[in-house]
Amino acid sequence: MTPDTHTTPTPSLPVTDRTRLRRMREKGRTRRSDLDAVLAAGFLCHLAVVVDGTPMAVPTAYGATADTLYVHGSVAGRSLVQAPDATVCVTVTQLDGIVLARSVFEHGVNYRCAMIYATPRVVTDPDEKLEGLRVLTEQCVPGQWDYARTPSRKELAATTLLALDLAEASVKVRTGPPDDGDSPDAGLDVWAGVLPVTTLWGPPVPDPALRTGIPLPPHITKTTGTDVFPTPPSGPEPQENS
Amino acid sequence: MTPDTHTTPTPSLPVTDRTRLRRMREKGRTRRSDLDAVLAAGFLCHLAVVVDGTPMAVPTAYGATADTLYVHGSVAGRSLVQAPDATVCVTVTQLDGIVLARSVFEHGVNYRCAMIYATPRVVTDPDEKLEGLRVLTEQCVPGQWDYARTPSRKELAATTLLALDLAEASVKVRTGPPDDGDSPDAGLDVWAGVLPVTTLWGPPVPDPALRTGIPLPPHITKTTGTDVFPTPPSGPEPQENS
Repeated sequence: MTPDTHTTPTPSLPVTDRTRLRRMREKGRTRRSDLDAVLAAGFLCHLAVVVDGTPMAVPTAYGATADTLYVHGSVAGRSLVQAPDATVCVTVTQLDGIVLARSVFEHGVNYRCAMIYATPRVVTDPDEKLEGLRVLTEQCVPGQWDYARTPSRKELAATTLLALDLAEASVKVRTGPPDDGDSPDAGLDVWAGVLPVTTLWGPPVPDPALRTGIPLPPHITKTTGTDVFPTPPSGPEPQENS
Repeated sequence: MTPDTHTTPTPSLPVTDRTRLRRMREKGRTRRSDLDAVLAAGFLCHLAVVVDGTPMAVPTAYGATADTLYVHGSVAGRSLVQAPDATVCVTVTQLDGIVLARSVFEHGVNYRCAMIYATPRVVTDPDEKLEGLRVLTEQCVPGQWDYARTPSRKELAATTLLALDLAEASVKVRTGPPDDGDSPDAGLDVWAGVLPVTTLWGPPVPDPALRTGIPLPPHITKTTGTDVFPTPPSGPEPQENS
């Protein structure tokens, strides 16, 4: 993988003891824009917390602003009670393909992954909560917040929303073919390459209880057949001296 | 969601303090076969470990046998050194769709999720390691183990493979339409239903370094266009009195 030698100065992700890559450094991305790209492509994360001494990774939805990650936090209930000041980890992973090498040892996965470390702040201010839920909803289905009924005061109170600072994060991305094309294994009669994985929005399925005469809004119909976790237009891999 | 009232006795997942569902109990599945189905459909998991007191969820590959989950464990290096006897959590999540309700509050995700708790055992026996890697490789791309070059003794030694007992696990599955079809919100002029998400294998992309004349093996070509995380033929949801 090409090292990032981008000549235009872009904000970097600060390296901490937690975000310093100890393995597969060549997959590490250090620009703040790399983090933004991974976060922008998804809406599901795994929130890692410790409950009764045991780590748990729980899937939940998120939404990202420039500096804050909002996470649906009901799943973190016990963790927040037991250790409100503890650091948690939010991992966002998009699967892009399986890398088939000549040797099993060199097999791998093409993926985009961001890991964010922060002490979650439980959002209590109603305005921020509403805004955080808007960000989270729009991250998943753009256009839906202005279309569906927004939360009542009671619903807002029943929702646990966590805010995580995006200051400490690591990003790893793997793209491209297997790494054993220039090894002795390249002489083997074994096909090598990538099996791409694409995640697509299917055609909307109406609720059987839907009243007749309610049309599909354009912001929903237009997703059909499109990529759920799109790769940014520039591609995830920085170009050398571009 | 229909409660599981399956009349044929099937092995149940033992309920422990960790696997007892505290939220959304209606999504819980208690049969051992539910766990098997979620594990069989995937090959990527998030391994949650504690490093220097901080939880981390790290994506990695897995393979499942009847009683053991094999996990690529290099990512757990520091955790294993710091707390070799600690329980870890492996979470397998397949995203099936976004549930669009009339109200934002009732929005949700259709998914299949299994969380396994176990103290990982580092596999040291070369035969078990080879077998575990075979299971892991076949879980991802069936047919690949007998096709590609299998690991040398040196490669085997350089691989960290973890074995996790499948005895303690919880399973959650959500399927079907939104839950507010019988609420006052059903009177709103808001479309409601599910945006299905389908993850597909794309056409294989050859390594640019691939020698000419190496054909694509049938076990790879046949995946194109098929579901990466297939729903079991019977569907993930148990039928009442079926």
